[in-house]
Amino acid sequence: MTKWVYGFGGTTSEGRGDMKNLLGGKGANLAEMSSIGLPVPPGFTITTEVCTHYYQNTQSFPSELKDQVTKALADIEKATGMRFGDAQNPLLLSVRSGARVSMPGMMDTVLNLGLNDETAEGLAQKSGNPRFTYDSYRRFIMMYGDVVMGLAHHDFEDILDQHKRDMDITEDTDITAEGWKKIIVQFKDMVKRELGKPFPADPQEQLWGAISAVFKSWMVPRAIAYRQINDIPESWGTAVSVQSMVFGNMGQDCATGVAFTRDPSTGENYFYGEYLVNAQGEDVVAGIRTPQSLTIYGKEKEKSQLPAMEEVMPDVFAQLDQVRHILEKHYRDMQDIEFTVQKGTLYMLQTRTGKRTAAAALKIAVDMVKEKLITSDEAILRIDPQALDQLLHPTLDPHAHKQIVAKGLPASPGAASGKIMFHADDAEKAAKKGEKIILCRVETSPDDIHGMHVAAGILTTRGGMTSHAAVVARGMGRACVAGCGAITIDYKTATMTIMGAELKEGDIITIDGSTGEVMLGQVPTIQPELSGDFAEVMGWADKARRMSVRANAETPLDASTARRFGAEGIGLCRTEHMFFDPARIQHVREMIFATSTPYRRDAVMKLLPAQKGDFKKLFEIMKGLPVTIRLLDPPLHEFMPHSDKDITEFAKAAKLDLARVQTRLAELHEANPMLGHRGCRLGITFPEIYAMQIRAIFEAAIETDVTPEIMIPLIATHKELEILKKLVEDIAGEIFAEQKKKISYTVGTMIELPRAALMAEEIARSAEFFSFGTNDLTQTTLGLSRDDAGKFMPEYIQQGIFEKDPFTTLDKAGVGQLIQMATDRGRQTRPDMKLGICGEHGGDPASIAFCEEVGLDYISCSPYRVPIARLAAAQATLRLQKSAQAKNKKAA
Amino acid sequence: MTKWVYGFGGTTSEGRGDMKNLLGGKGANLAEMSSIGLPVPPGFTITTEVCTHYYQNTQSFPSELKDQVTKALADIEKATGMRFGDAQNPLLLSVRSGARVSMPGMMDTVLNLGLNDETAEGLAQKSGNPRFTYDSYRRFIMMYGDVVMGLAHHDFEDILDQHKRDMDITEDTDITAEGWKKIIVQFKDMVKRELGKPFPADPQEQLWGAISAVFKSWMVPRAIAYRQINDIPESWGTAVSVQSMVFGNMGQDCATGVAFTRDPSTGENYFYGEYLVNAQGEDVVAGIRTPQSLTIYGKEKEKSQLPAMEEVMPDVFAQLDQVRHILEKHYRDMQDIEFTVQKGTLYMLQTRTGKRTAAAALKIAVDMVKEKLITSDEAILRIDPQALDQLLHPTLDPHAHKQIVAKGLPASPGAASGKIMFHADDAEKAAKKGEKIILCRVETSPDDIHGMHVAAGILTTRGGMTSHAAVVARGMGRACVAGCGAITIDYKTATMTIMGAELKEGDIITIDGSTGEVMLGQVPTIQPELSGDFAEVMGWADKARRMSVRANAETPLDASTARRFGAEGIGLCRTEHMFFDPARIQHVREMIFATSTPYRRDAVMKLLPAQKGDFKKLFEIMKGLPVTIRLLDPPLHEFMPHSDKDITEFAKAAKLDLARVQTRLAELHEANPMLGHRGCRLGITFPEIYAMQIRAIFEAAIETDVTPEIMIPLIATHKELEILKKLVEDIAGEIFAEQKKKISYTVGTMIELPRAALMAEEIARSAEFFSFGTNDLTQTTLGLSRDDAGKFMPEYIQQGIFEKDPFTTLDKAGVGQLIQMATDRGRQTRPDMKLGICGEHGGDPASIAFCEEVGLDYISCSPYRVPIARLAAAQATLRLQKSAQAKNKKAA
Repeated sequence: MTKWVYGFGGTTSEGRGDMKNLLGGKGANLAEMSSIGLPVPPGFTITTEVCTHYYQNTQSFPSELKDQVTKALADIEKATGMRFGDAQNPLLLSVRSGARVSMPGMMDTVLNLGLNDETAEGLAQKSGNPRFTYDSYRRFIMMYGDVVMGLAHHDFEDILDQHKRDMDITEDTDITAEGWKKIIVQFKDMVKRELGKPFPADPQEQLWGAISAVFKSWMVPRAIAYRQINDIPESWGTAVSVQSMVFGNMGQDCATGVAFTRDPSTGENYFYGEYLVNAQGEDVVAGIRTPQSLTIYGKEKEKSQLPAMEEVMPDVFAQLDQVRHILEKHYRDMQDIEFTVQKGTLYMLQTRTGKRTAAAALKIAVDMVKEKLITSDEAILRIDPQALDQLLHPTLDPHAHKQIVAKGLPASPGAASGKIMFHADDAEKAAKKGEKIILCRVETSPDDIHGMHVAAGILTTRGGMTSHAAVVARGMGRACVAGCGAITIDYKTATMTIMGAELKEGDIITIDGSTGEVMLGQVPTIQPELSGDFAEVMGWADKARRMSVRANAETPLDASTARRFGAEGIGLCRTEHMFFDPARIQHVREMIFATSTPYRRDAVMKLLPAQKGDFKKLFEIMKGLPVTIRLLDPPLHEFMPHSDKDITEFAKAAKLDLARVQTRLAELHEANPMLGHRGCRLGITFPEIYAMQIRAIFEAAIETDVTPEIMIPLIATHKELEILKKLVEDIAGEIFAEQKKKISYTVGTMIELPRAALMAEEIARSAEFFSFGTNDLTQTTLGLSRDDAGKFMPEYIQQGIFEKDPFTTLDKAGVGQLIQMATDRGRQTRPDMKLGICGEHGGDPASIAFCEEVGLDYISCSPYRVPIARLAAAQATLRLQKSAQAKNKKAA
Repeated sequence: MTKWVYGFGGTTSEGRGDMKNLLGGKGANLAEMSSIGLPVPPGFTITTEVCTHYYQNTQSFPSELKDQVTKALADIEKATGMRFGDAQNPLLLSVRSGARVSMPGMMDTVLNLGLNDETAEGLAQKSGNPRFTYDSYRRFIMMYGDVVMGLAHHDFEDILDQHKRDMDITEDTDITAEGWKKIIVQFKDMVKRELGKPFPADPQEQLWGAISAVFKSWMVPRAIAYRQINDIPESWGTAVSVQSMVFGNMGQDCATGVAFTRDPSTGENYFYGEYLVNAQGEDVVAGIRTPQSLTIYGKEKEKSQLPAMEEVMPDVFAQLDQVRHILEKHYRDMQDIEFTVQKGTLYMLQTRTGKRTAAAALKIAVDMVKEKLITSDEAILRIDPQALDQLLHPTLDPHAHKQIVAKGLPASPGAASGKIMFHADDAEKAAKKGEKIILCRVETSPDDIHGMHVAAGILTTRGGMTSHAAVVARGMGRACVAGCGAITIDYKTATMTIMGAELKEGDIITIDGSTGEVMLGQVPTIQPELSGDFAEVMGWADKARRMSVRANAETPLDASTARRFGAEGIGLCRTEHMFFDPARIQHVREMIFATSTPYRRDAVMKLLPAQKGDFKKLFEIMKGLPVTIRLLDPPLHEFMPHSDKDITEFAKAAKLDLARVQTRLAELHEANPMLGHRGCRLGITFPEIYAMQIRAIFEAAIETDVTPEIMIPLIATHKELEILKKLVEDIAGEIFAEQKKKISYTVGTMIELPRAALMAEEIARSAEFFSFGTNDLTQTTLGLSRDDAGKFMPEYIQQGIFEKDPFTTLDKAGVGQLIQMATDRGRQTRPDMKLGICGEHGGDPASIAFCEEVGLDYISCSPYRVPIARLAAAQATLRLQKSAQAKNKKAA
């Protein structure tokens, strides 16, 4: 016979903490606390399997359920000495839902279940507190009427308000027991009027109504939507926990509270929490009365005048403090607990792992290692790498006054203040004078890169999380608020309008890229702190991880940031950004307009000194570390002017006929630039461009003594790589002969097209390393343009077609297959092949775990994600070791 | 010891006809003829391995070569009774290159080698014909000076012309023996002057000079270029054939000729050829004297007054006619031969398989089967499927006068005449009046489809072989000349300019899409003939092939054409073209502008009757055959107006604010439409569009009793297909209930994204068939936009990066892997999965061979390629059987 019901509390505990799948998070932890001897009010949990059965059998319960519940209820009665529905000594129950993970939108709680006119009378007698009793009774009717019977909460509130008006009182606390009694009658009348049936007086009917309501709430639209967004399978189902009520509001020897075993904001190791004397749980969070600190230390820290629990009920506090230590020792992590004191007796109502800030997570992990509660490996696994992002960027001073005027998408974390500038060139000029700038654009394009680079933050009114502005800003570590539709920019008048207010160029604003908020004026910010606990955990992570972590960086600033954040090399130095420099773009454009190879060579060679200078600076910063340089990748039209004004200006400066310029621009236009004349295709058709870049790399490398890794983009066939590798070798040979000095170098390729992955065995004959360009590999494998997917991706995720945006987290099932294939086939040909990843996914923990599984040698991500990647890589190594050990154990 | 030299002729033959790789085509066939007892002047062949050795060893010969040549030369001397370099009885030699396949650009021939002042004197004595002798001598110096010593041909011609002016004669034939002697002296003086060294008198030096020249010519730029274009590996090398000279110009009992064993134009079984008495081979083709027919039949057929060889030299002719029969019986194919008669003795100088027209190929194959010379399977394999294209389209009357004014790309075969129209709408109006139209555009877009459809031919001034115009025209079977840059179109004045001449709307032109020619006025055309030999061969092919052949067709005309050409169903009915109909496009655009689902549903439902009508017509034509319908595929912006004028008109007609229209158009714009919001992504986000199409299909199918195959495009994930299959099932259920009738149907998907191929096992859970959309699969696998690749594809092919344009012939190595994978994985889940291909590759013989290897069930191509596909499919089946038999044999 299937066991559908698990009892806990009193003397027995049929469940355990690791049975979350069956008992839900709440049920499992109640069982666990009970089993380690903590004071838990007796109760039972109806399993998630009942929920599954319910929906698989036209919303009906398994036939054995009723008997099992009756039996479990009898156990509670035995443990508490009270009887459910008894007129003299009534047992009251709470009924709560509890899925594996906490899930808003579902029915939460019905308290005080079991009350009716008779049992209420009995309870009033027994407790000697009729006001408490009828207050509890009316609360029960309100909750049950709302969540089980589907009535509107305000229907009850209206009656309550009317009563207060009639009695000329303002506070609920002023209502007497008699008042509540009258209200209860009115409540029940209203229920009958509205639903055509009376409020159930039978406690059994109440109980089964509440249980059914929990299961029904699993399929309400809000719950379904939440599951889809958070990727929770419908099949998990919810459990129902039924527990005997305890009361913190039966007098001055009663209390209720919530606590964390350590400070969840800072991680400081003291008992952090609040309580209220003579109150129910909801009063603590409702904000009607001011909650008080648990400890004297806390009270002093918060400069509170109200007495701490440690002072008011020292005995019970001591017992609670002991529970705190037991729980931490047992769970080996910081806990978030709820408790009630009924007439001087402590009851534990809930424990769960406490949510915490990133800073707290670090401190708690480090402290627990020092306390020998956990190992450093466990500490590494305790910290959410994504959360580190909070620590790596400036944040707004939480005490500062903020005037929030608009909200966009939190596109790139960090807070920044500065003067509004609408054009990249203006931003650059202002930045040269030492001013801090917020670049404000409708959208950004590669033309704006130099402006984005000097800006402290970027604000766009259009575009999503994967828009150009968002992607580039994240890469550069600039704060960015994107797609802020409430703002209208007028370039002509150099103004922008927010909620009717006009801001002009030079006005100061503040943006918070972590929240999407836009604020007027300067809001003070706090700089990140990378030492202390952060450094300690990073040190452990670096020891634990197998893969090395590099950064995608092309400017000296990026490279320095990357080193500061612990990057072990550059995995992707894009060279196109160097072409956008205003001092060079004219040469680039003239090169594009050259009609023959010699002209093109002359034009491109004008870029050589600057390009060499770029590499030299980079190599000096990265001294001793590997640097992978990708040769020119984007299609040439990206370098051309777009607006009529810019086109005319360019034609004038280049002394070209405007009509010819326009014709050439039309020729350069591509239907699908992503799949067009770019990457190595440029190198094949215009070898002089690559030749210049290769020369610049070698001349710079010889002077700085680094080992450059030259990376050819967009390879689809082995022959392309063969041709371009020969170009590298020829130019290297020339330079070695000129300078009478040789350096070592490697030539490799991006694997960013499905064909390259499929042909990896052949391509590896020429490639000394592969770097997976997962952005483009995702685009081509899925046939999905990153720039255009925004229009339907939200719907795709909502409908569960993709679990997560495949441009954020690697599509393991599809793209992952190609990566695995390329890895296996590449190593078939060249066992010592170096393998890495340099797409946006290189900074995503889930994707990093996949890279570890596949066995890549390194991951490369934007400088600001390097610490995240270091930690995620360590976690990946540890998890893989763990699962290997588990497998070995199973095999043994 | 390696054998570098193979002798032939006389009594021995060391080589065979199947040794082409070693001996070259010419050398192998000389050996073969010799071995079957035909009269071949003795000689020897230096192998292609010598060529390879030559280039692998700094242009030097293997050490054993000299001895082997000396030995072979001695054998010739023995067989002929003459001696090389002998002053009394000199042996003269010809030296010819011979690769595996005939290759223009290489050194061809040096004749009369061995002549010098002494041997010439001896030859004059022996032949008693000084004029013949010194004419031969001067020819030798000219040829040798040109091809071996690198002098300009005109240097010799100048001397010759000067001599004729001095002697006051006009024809070479008027030059006497003495005259030639003088000229020879002048030739030799000129050589010494130009090169600083004398013309070689030593026959051995002459011989080795000529041999070296052949090997050197393997690497001249023209030969390299030819190899690259024709995909001939450099490693093949060339052989050198050295052969004793025979002379057709020693008197009236001498002759020379070329012949085909059957008529290469029509295939008629008679001895087709020409000869000249007292002439050398080059005279026959030089056109100075009029060649005469071999046979009386031929002479009468050509209405020639000159006597036939059959009359002039009946004995030698009889011998030659016997050779003809021996060769056909031996080679079992039509042969192209060269012969010389020296003093009444016949010598065979060459035989090879004769080139022929498509019509001749069919007739010869059918006749040879009737003659029991070959089997019908062999007949099938004899015909180049591509060549059939010549027979399926109207061709220009070869006797008509043509005024060619421009030449563009031969983008879609067939010839057509008609009135010039510049706009699709005008073309449509004119066509309704029964006029034939040539639609002339700078480029075409989907907006022009209706105009292209009514046009007899399409001419564009821009775009390549894979431009929109070219692809669509081939699909529709319309003649198309694309990218004709010599023509300038001015839409404003409705004129176009060709070489200064102005043509206006309504003027008549003729285009030949098989050659790219554009002609003024109407040139008569000849309609294709699909019966007779064509039908016979097609019948054999249909019996031989395993795969079925379907057509890509969406209009009644296309469908009828497809049936006429033998299509066994429709493999791809695109539905978007139905949306472009001028009567419907406004509804389509209103649907796109609908702001909410109900509005969109209303707009789209207006299209239902028309769409249902389309399907009904199609189903009626295809009755009894399967029809695969693809739901809407292109991104919505393709349906929107592009020009400012059209946009304004649309806004007016739809009663929409112009600014709103422009904003919406900007929103619809995509950076990479190929990877954008299209295919099933439309179906997921706007299910009402697919719902309308599905309803139209089922309503039409129920009325016509067909089994529709509904195909969902651009599937990347199983979930997409699952959602849309459910939509199909729901609507089918609704209609079955409404109509109280059920029909059977299947739901399947295109496999056109790499991810779909990778996930085929999962996708096959919902898909009942896969159709490989190899156009898009090639685009995504290679990361290569078909619309943009034209800019660099020629260079890519020239550099050997792709052997062939991957949009024409399937990239087996890359894309093929994914097809194989999807096939295996799809059948893993669903063993009876139906598999087909519907990209452009479905009509390409090489790609069809691959489909056979993979084991697809059907191929689908444009209607005009159906016969090609039927033949190619049969060849693929036969070749695969053959290679399986060969393998079995080897294993046994």
